[in-house]
Amino acid sequence: MSSKLPRSPLAPAQFPAMPQIDGIHLYVAAAQIKYQDRDDVMLMMADQGAVCAGMFTKSKTASAAVDTSRAALATGTARAIITNSGNANAFTGRKGADSVSAYCAALATQLAISADQIMVASTGVIGEVLDAGKMIAAFDGLLGQQASWEQAAQAICTTDTFAKGATRQIEIDGIKITLNGIAKGSGMIAPDMATMLCYVGTDAAISQHCLQQLLSRAIDKSFHCITVDSDTSTSDSVYAIASGGANNRQIDRLDSDAATMLEAALTDLLTDLAVQVVKDGEGATKLIRISVRHAADDQDARMIALSVANSPLVKTAIAGEDANWGRIVMAVGKSGAMIDRDALAISIGGVIIAKKGEAVEGYDEAPVTAHMKGQTIDIDIDIGQPEAGGHAYIYSCDLTHGYISINADYRS
Amino acid sequence: MSSKLPRSPLAPAQFPAMPQIDGIHLYVAAAQIKYQDRDDVMLMMADQGAVCAGMFTKSKTASAAVDTSRAALATGTARAIITNSGNANAFTGRKGADSVSAYCAALATQLAISADQIMVASTGVIGEVLDAGKMIAAFDGLLGQQASWEQAAQAICTTDTFAKGATRQIEIDGIKITLNGIAKGSGMIAPDMATMLCYVGTDAAISQHCLQQLLSRAIDKSFHCITVDSDTSTSDSVYAIASGGANNRQIDRLDSDAATMLEAALTDLLTDLAVQVVKDGEGATKLIRISVRHAADDQDARMIALSVANSPLVKTAIAGEDANWGRIVMAVGKSGAMIDRDALAISIGGVIIAKKGEAVEGYDEAPVTAHMKGQTIDIDIDIGQPEAGGHAYIYSCDLTHGYISINADYRS
Repeated sequence: MSSKLPRSPLAPAQFPAMPQIDGIHLYVAAAQIKYQDRDDVMLMMADQGAVCAGMFTKSKTASAAVDTSRAALATGTARAIITNSGNANAFTGRKGADSVSAYCAALATQLAISADQIMVASTGVIGEVLDAGKMIAAFDGLLGQQASWEQAAQAICTTDTFAKGATRQIEIDGIKITLNGIAKGSGMIAPDMATMLCYVGTDAAISQHCLQQLLSRAIDKSFHCITVDSDTSTSDSVYAIASGGANNRQIDRLDSDAATMLEAALTDLLTDLAVQVVKDGEGATKLIRISVRHAADDQDARMIALSVANSPLVKTAIAGEDANWGRIVMAVGKSGAMIDRDALAISIGGVIIAKKGEAVEGYDEAPVTAHMKGQTIDIDIDIGQPEAGGHAYIYSCDLTHGYISINADYRS
Repeated sequence: MSSKLPRSPLAPAQFPAMPQIDGIHLYVAAAQIKYQDRDDVMLMMADQGAVCAGMFTKSKTASAAVDTSRAALATGTARAIITNSGNANAFTGRKGADSVSAYCAALATQLAISADQIMVASTGVIGEVLDAGKMIAAFDGLLGQQASWEQAAQAICTTDTFAKGATRQIEIDGIKITLNGIAKGSGMIAPDMATMLCYVGTDAAISQHCLQQLLSRAIDKSFHCITVDSDTSTSDSVYAIASGGANNRQIDRLDSDAATMLEAALTDLLTDLAVQVVKDGEGATKLIRISVRHAADDQDARMIALSVANSPLVKTAIAGEDANWGRIVMAVGKSGAMIDRDALAISIGGVIIAKKGEAVEGYDEAPVTAHMKGQTIDIDIDIGQPEAGGHAYIYSCDLTHGYISINADYRS
């Protein structure tokens, strides 16, 4: 975490207590890639027999790490993820890929696994080749002592002002299943596949196919529903490893009760982490929850919600605690979705401010004004097509002087 | 113009000297709609026989004024445009439309024309009904004295820090033709039809059909190529009136030399005004010119240029005079366009920083650093498909503390 930045006012009081996950091991080290006084390398490793799933950025300028992870995942035998913070090793061409090959080969020897079983994540500055020598030097002694989930969450931070973790437990067939997750992300956050880095470990026994499907569905309802600044990272990756250590009957059908329960827990876990990422949005002082309903379809609803969530004028109005609903109307209008202006209704903090295309006469401003001063701002947009069921929600944050300071005043 | 805001550092030294246009008359008045100490009503009126053209916002929440102007334009006989600043009369439902009807009827009587010959523009706060009584009161004595183009440009300003005007003269068939234009706009600027308000007057004799076509084409190459904050106004309108006062042979064919010459002059005029709007972008300290070439097609090139132009991380880096080309790579990658990462080249200030998907080794940073300190930042992106001719350019501005101050610190 950057020592320059104050902790987000929206940060949780403390990192949650997270149990160990049977069959999954964490290690951290200091490679001094960019940060000099903290851990910046994290290894997540599962015992043999574990299955992995992953989703990666849709960016057309994805990093060498993302290329490598996609390939490792395709082998079906991946069971380690090596991560560094401080350098994204993105847009580094052949030299960047060669660096990844070099340090993966060294790590494979140390872990006594094949190099193509190693997935790679890198986060930090774009355009500089990651020094493989520094990574390899950090592997020396890496396996000496296991790290906690909190230590792992701290090692992957960049401009984050707090480490992000969440844990859930469910019972399937009388067997307790644990899911742990950690994530990092603060700027360059827009939902297009997955956002920044997230790691989930569970002791559930599940087939690789089922894990990948459940992960995709859960991401659609969590990380795909957040935005900080509409900018999509070159490194976005979400990984899930299931060790099977809980010894439940293997989940191998998506239509089973066990899969449904696990999906619900995973969605809940990822939503927790995704909202933590928004709460650590660069410069954020308020969390914005935008709900859109009665749009022509879900895709239209999502376009509208994202248009509002990414509008600089809406985000600055909220920073100023100004219930400037005219800017919300503007953002709905520019979204590209099908809209009947004269059917539109807008509520803030549960109070209807405008309906049927105009301001509600004499609406009670007091509760809206009070709501704007809070840390969570709720915007509900009813597109007014009662027969249409299109709905969507997006989490965003306000746009403040803090965002400008972090991204313009400090040189990266 | 808001007295609170300092003049943009990118503003031109002075308003240009603009000749009168034969057959086109300007009037201003103070209706005290929002601003108390300045003119806020502007009438542009042409003699009988003039032809009008217009383009309007694509926003689905367009204002009552835009609705009215579209209808007036469709009659083919429109020859007056009444404008107010300080209230956009947008999202005001039936009451907003009734207000427009009331003051247009009063104005029609005074001008001795039909109400459906009057087009309407309104700019300012969204969601409040424009008081027709204030407008009608201001019409009293409005025609007493003609205003200059500079006075008209001042009357339509809102958060603008300088009035925007431009003039061009060309000779067709030995006859001098003049084009004058004024515009307003500073925030809520994204190119989707036309941006904010712009008025062109010319003494050319031209058919209505030709004028509309030339206006559309010129807007595509000017106002459609700018963005300040990716937010599209509910009120965007560009109007052109041709009085025929120059007595040239009427231009009635698009494939004529005269049409080609007039289109070039109109495009040049509108580009001048559009760039002035960006230079007055809220909080702007730098003008950014983004050029994309060798993309799959023009549409892809435009998507890429807009993605870079609207990226908060690119805009803040430029505000910080930081040649952070990694953020440009990110914005290209998220654009949704077809990209081969390993063929991409990026130049800043004419210096190639990255090519074939990685940084150029040992590039000369000194001229780039010097360029970043200037007021105009040139970014050239080569998508690296030499056989593909897709190209686009976009003008944008940086994202600074000034933008946040204007939109969050001051309540609207």
